[in-house]
Amino acid sequence: MAKKQKVEAITPRDEDFARWYTDVISKTEMVDYSPVKGFMVIRPYGYAIWENIQSEYDKKFKETGHKNMYFPLLIPESLLQKEAEHVEGFAPEVAWVTHGGGKELGERLAVRPTSETIICSMYSKWLNTYRQLPFLYNQWCSVVRWEKTTRPFLRTSEFLWQEGHTLHETAEEAQEETMQMLGIYRDVAEQYMAIPMVVGRKSEKERFAGAAETYTMEALMHDGQALQSGTSHNLGQHFTKAFEITYLDRGNNQAFPYHTSWGVSTRLIGALIMVHGDDNGLVLPPKIAPTQLVIIPVAQHKEGVLDKAWEIKNKLAEKFKVEIDDQDGYSPGWKFNQWEMKGVPIRLEIGPRDIESNQCVLARRDNGEKIQVSLDDLDVTVEKLLDEIQNNLFQKALERREQKTSIAINLEEFKENLAANPGFIKAMWCGDRACEDKIKEETGATLRCIPFEQEIIGDGSCICCSKKAEDMAYFARAY
Amino acid sequence: MAKKQKVEAITPRDEDFARWYTDVISKTEMVDYSPVKGFMVIRPYGYAIWENIQSEYDKKFKETGHKNMYFPLLIPESLLQKEAEHVEGFAPEVAWVTHGGGKELGERLAVRPTSETIICSMYSKWLNTYRQLPFLYNQWCSVVRWEKTTRPFLRTSEFLWQEGHTLHETAEEAQEETMQMLGIYRDVAEQYMAIPMVVGRKSEKERFAGAAETYTMEALMHDGQALQSGTSHNLGQHFTKAFEITYLDRGNNQAFPYHTSWGVSTRLIGALIMVHGDDNGLVLPPKIAPTQLVIIPVAQHKEGVLDKAWEIKNKLAEKFKVEIDDQDGYSPGWKFNQWEMKGVPIRLEIGPRDIESNQCVLARRDNGEKIQVSLDDLDVTVEKLLDEIQNNLFQKALERREQKTSIAINLEEFKENLAANPGFIKAMWCGDRACEDKIKEETGATLRCIPFEQEIIGDGSCICCSKKAEDMAYFARAY
Repeated sequence: MAKKQKVEAITPRDEDFARWYTDVISKTEMVDYSPVKGFMVIRPYGYAIWENIQSEYDKKFKETGHKNMYFPLLIPESLLQKEAEHVEGFAPEVAWVTHGGGKELGERLAVRPTSETIICSMYSKWLNTYRQLPFLYNQWCSVVRWEKTTRPFLRTSEFLWQEGHTLHETAEEAQEETMQMLGIYRDVAEQYMAIPMVVGRKSEKERFAGAAETYTMEALMHDGQALQSGTSHNLGQHFTKAFEITYLDRGNNQAFPYHTSWGVSTRLIGALIMVHGDDNGLVLPPKIAPTQLVIIPVAQHKEGVLDKAWEIKNKLAEKFKVEIDDQDGYSPGWKFNQWEMKGVPIRLEIGPRDIESNQCVLARRDNGEKIQVSLDDLDVTVEKLLDEIQNNLFQKALERREQKTSIAINLEEFKENLAANPGFIKAMWCGDRACEDKIKEETGATLRCIPFEQEIIGDGSCICCSKKAEDMAYFARAY
Repeated sequence: MAKKQKVEAITPRDEDFARWYTDVISKTEMVDYSPVKGFMVIRPYGYAIWENIQSEYDKKFKETGHKNMYFPLLIPESLLQKEAEHVEGFAPEVAWVTHGGGKELGERLAVRPTSETIICSMYSKWLNTYRQLPFLYNQWCSVVRWEKTTRPFLRTSEFLWQEGHTLHETAEEAQEETMQMLGIYRDVAEQYMAIPMVVGRKSEKERFAGAAETYTMEALMHDGQALQSGTSHNLGQHFTKAFEITYLDRGNNQAFPYHTSWGVSTRLIGALIMVHGDDNGLVLPPKIAPTQLVIIPVAQHKEGVLDKAWEIKNKLAEKFKVEIDDQDGYSPGWKFNQWEMKGVPIRLEIGPRDIESNQCVLARRDNGEKIQVSLDDLDVTVEKLLDEIQNNLFQKALERREQKTSIAINLEEFKENLAANPGFIKAMWCGDRACEDKIKEETGATLRCIPFEQEIIGDGSCICCSKKAEDMAYFARAY
């Protein structure tokens, strides 16, 4: 067997995390930089991961009664301005279309940074009676938000996402919907992407522009920085009032419905990379990997090897996403490295001696283990192993997050922890914006969320002002 | 049973086809007009049809080795200008972003009207050796082309589509790819959407800006106008030279690859409506319908009716896309009309007397037939019926197209036919642009394509100049 060479090009993760990230996404051909600064090209390998994420979410959206639709890319400036907080939040990031069809336009059009305004303007036209409620609709599209500093998947001037927009008769139903969607976000993230999430509500400062409440799921990356990975907003009646969405309620009165919106984006791919990846490249959870198993024939020129490899491929392909790498002119070792870098969960090696003994070797990407297994019932073995890998990745990520989560009872301890073991800091917070701002100023950490699972840290007083605090919050430096 | 009322709102098809179309798409809630002139909102019922079309094409693209990717929405003006014919073709229709992030941009950015230029600029970076070829990639996205006169689905300033972009070692392979994709376009259109297509090549005048050859599939609408429904372009080396895409070939020389691109769009939904629809609304082929069968309980307040209806629904839902309409406060007749308008292939009626005799009524949308069938093996009956409806719709559309296709040996006859029986005119054409222009000027009909299936009309001389012609072409007025 050819000697396994080190993939030289990837910067070690602990040496320079940002470089490591950039190396991984470019060497695995997930993404590339486009001619327009801050915009990314999502290459087939990256896009295939997005398709898998998308398909799991879309299935769950539909199971809970949501339907997809499509709204225009361009939004008139006047529409964007109808809700004050919202325009203030988004206007600085907007890309403006000023000319179309060879003429200057009478009104500037925003390339959508999000679609609340245009969707509300249509909902106000469509909704007449309570019989039509709830409106449970979603849109898959791209949005543009002009960013100064960008990093592929994590923060780019354009990204792909979905935005759900729902209307309900009561505040309770809207709140239930908001929580249901956050739950779906978390389920797919944890069960498919193997990323443990902290879920909770955002502080007023970190809320979506125009929302009554924003809920979030937050993941912890390998470098101890947090990543906001999905948000679900209870928008109350802010937008429905601003856009005059009314309907005849059960009592025959004109009423404003309650409104939610919720979104996840290609940012999740960034989380996937930074939670599971290692010095050899990507590590993909089986349920989201474009290729779950790659077959690499060893001594493939020897009689019978390629035939057997293809026989196995065709059999396994009935149940799994399988590739075979039978390219000429590359050593098995070179191929091992390539596929390892791409994070394929299982590598299957098969050579002449394996075939003689009716065996093959399975190598796990998650922990490097290699096992010899019988070719009989190979599909059962593989299925079991994929499950193990999926669970192992989640457990490892969870343990790492626990290791990187600490508590602090004062700002000194907060800073010490953040320096010694960057990650989540759990601390009490009085609820005042001033304290939140001061913590950020002094530590660089932001309030990620007030988790649903509460506990009392120390004597329960605010870490900043020492007043009695009602909430424990997660803080972290964040992407 | 409640009396079946006429759906009043739809203008009869033969009275005013354009009004009929507008009525159908708005009353069935497929689409709505947005606040920006020329842009449409695709509502859930329209979008569900798009998802079904998309999923069939995407499956076939992947089966033939294509992968999806995503390129930025915005293209620098300088990039658009790299290929002369192309920029000339698209520049007048471009929407320009001039401001982003609160500043005027140094260079205008085009909202993509199509992505050849940006994709080629990236391909030139990615391609090094013949070993990487072919590049078989596709993108699903929206494009913007500023239009003066718009009609939902048929011509709008923004539409959804896919654009495949491939690179090949040889001209032959590029030509094969171009034809393969046209074949896939036709197969899905005919087998799923039940729309018969005429396939062939475009004249030079009607070619895509920058293409060596453009191939098209053309459908005939109910009013006798043609609709270009999908195009596949052999781009030769125009773009690969303009964008300096080179690679080391098998002989170790720098070479330019051969290039194709191909696209279908939400326009296909327009074809679906205008080929199959009737005075009562949409008529959807079972393979593309969001709902294949709707169950309408009759006398649903009577004991056991709803239980039975739901039992049937749950059973049939294992194999088919089934809805049940058990809303209170609406008569069965009103519901019949609603679902008929929405084009659902089969309506299942079930009431107390049906249940007593272990039967139900199935009503076909395509021909209005109603049959009483046993509740035993209902799934087999339904499956057979859906097949029959699918085939019948294709046959009816094919026969109608044949009726509306005539031949002409001179311009007089051409005009007479077009007046008496609007549709396709088959006529000989010498290949000269001047004749093509004159035919359009005098008749309003354009050259739709030079079909692969050739025949000689009359004595084989050009219908316009009477010179000997090598090609028979299809002409029609077109959307």
